[in-house]
Amino acid sequence: MLSKNSIKYIQSLQHKKFRDEYNVFVAEGPKLVNELLNTHSFVCRNVFAVEEWVDMLNDATKLSLGSKLEVVLDFELAKIASFATPNNVVAVFEKKIINDSYQPKGRITLLLDDIQDPGNFGTIIRTADWFGITHIVCSNNTVDMYNSKVVQSTMASLARVNVIYTDLTSWMLKNVGVKKYATTLNGNPLGNVKGIKEAMIIIGNEANGISEAVLQLADENITIPKWGQAESLNAAVATGIILHAFKQ
Amino acid sequence: MLSKNSIKYIQSLQHKKFRDEYNVFVAEGPKLVNELLNTHSFVCRNVFAVEEWVDMLNDATKLSLGSKLEVVLDFELAKIASFATPNNVVAVFEKKIINDSYQPKGRITLLLDDIQDPGNFGTIIRTADWFGITHIVCSNNTVDMYNSKVVQSTMASLARVNVIYTDLTSWMLKNVGVKKYATTLNGNPLGNVKGIKEAMIIIGNEANGISEAVLQLADENITIPKWGQAESLNAAVATGIILHAFKQ
Repeated sequence: MLSKNSIKYIQSLQHKKFRDEYNVFVAEGPKLVNELLNTHSFVCRNVFAVEEWVDMLNDATKLSLGSKLEVVLDFELAKIASFATPNNVVAVFEKKIINDSYQPKGRITLLLDDIQDPGNFGTIIRTADWFGITHIVCSNNTVDMYNSKVVQSTMASLARVNVIYTDLTSWMLKNVGVKKYATTLNGNPLGNVKGIKEAMIIIGNEANGISEAVLQLADENITIPKWGQAESLNAAVATGIILHAFKQ
Repeated sequence: MLSKNSIKYIQSLQHKKFRDEYNVFVAEGPKLVNELLNTHSFVCRNVFAVEEWVDMLNDATKLSLGSKLEVVLDFELAKIASFATPNNVVAVFEKKIINDSYQPKGRITLLLDDIQDPGNFGTIIRTADWFGITHIVCSNNTVDMYNSKVVQSTMASLARVNVIYTDLTSWMLKNVGVKKYATTLNGNPLGNVKGIKEAMIIIGNEANGISEAVLQLADENITIPKWGQAESLNAAVATGIILHAFKQ
């Protein structure tokens, strides 16, 4: 039986304020929760699941979860789940501690300037993971990586990609010597670049692009060649195209 | 004053059944509605807007809208708008009549096999428009292109890209002679392809990929090289990467 306090606690985690206060976030659904449990990237605090999900667990996982696992009924789960589909399991994990001594030298790093849409951000994290990018550096105004929609759309890539929130311009000024590419609508055409091993790729806000202060610190503006008439590309699509071109 | 019947009518258009019955769809927000009005790709049936939006119209547009334009109050607009942000304008357009004699010879055509997520589909339409793709051929089970979330996420590319719903395997069998590339997780690596002018690119369902029947009609399976560990790429991101590689 799910207590009123548990319900209140999990519902409160829909708000960044409480995620920050308790230092945790929520993941939903068998696929995501199983993956996060298996990767061991996040310390698990609680799992609320229906019998059906619990029955499918292997003994080792069941044992390791111990008293953190609470079996609930469908109608109880519905109270704490934020997505409409019956999800069978809702879990609370501790946020990851990100080592802020990250060195971008010799690597490709994504820099996000105020990405606002949680779905876009989650898809960018997942795309970064596909291309083996280990670190994303975000402006402080970028949407929270532990927002439930971000968490769901990362498809567990959250476990493998490290996200750093910081003052983007200060961070860029501290990390000189790595070429900084700004993705804009009027830069050099993204040509046949290949095998780039070290770069910072800056992706801007969906509506306003990259802020002037960040843009001024870029070494080169690049643009994905346009053949048709769309005004812009989705931020996650643009990220994928550039990462593929750079990694080729 | 918005009549009860108007409210009921527009709300009903959230359902495909009624969009089909009346042969219309809904677009919201100044940016999208203005673009759709300007492109003249869709016949406008009704515009419900707050004074503020109407004041910004030029005389020609105001004249051409005539009695189709109805000024409403904020609280009235909120009743017919499906998105949370105050949108200032909600418009009803007639669906486009798609000429089904489309010839894929000499062009790049996107084939979508049961794409289900409206946001993904809208982003794919927008991405196709960026790369100058004029036609998308969809399986009958692909989400409705006039679903409000699809319409909003196309960012007016809906006006320039033609979407054909059909039995995908029959259509492929009728259109032989154009090389068909299936995007899968275990095909030939998408290498340094370049300047491809004629192709069919097949993108599969988000969870299940391309169906067996469609896959059997493909000439080549291609895969976007993976450097990290994400299980898959978002369908719209994959579409963007492949279109960019083909058009280069």
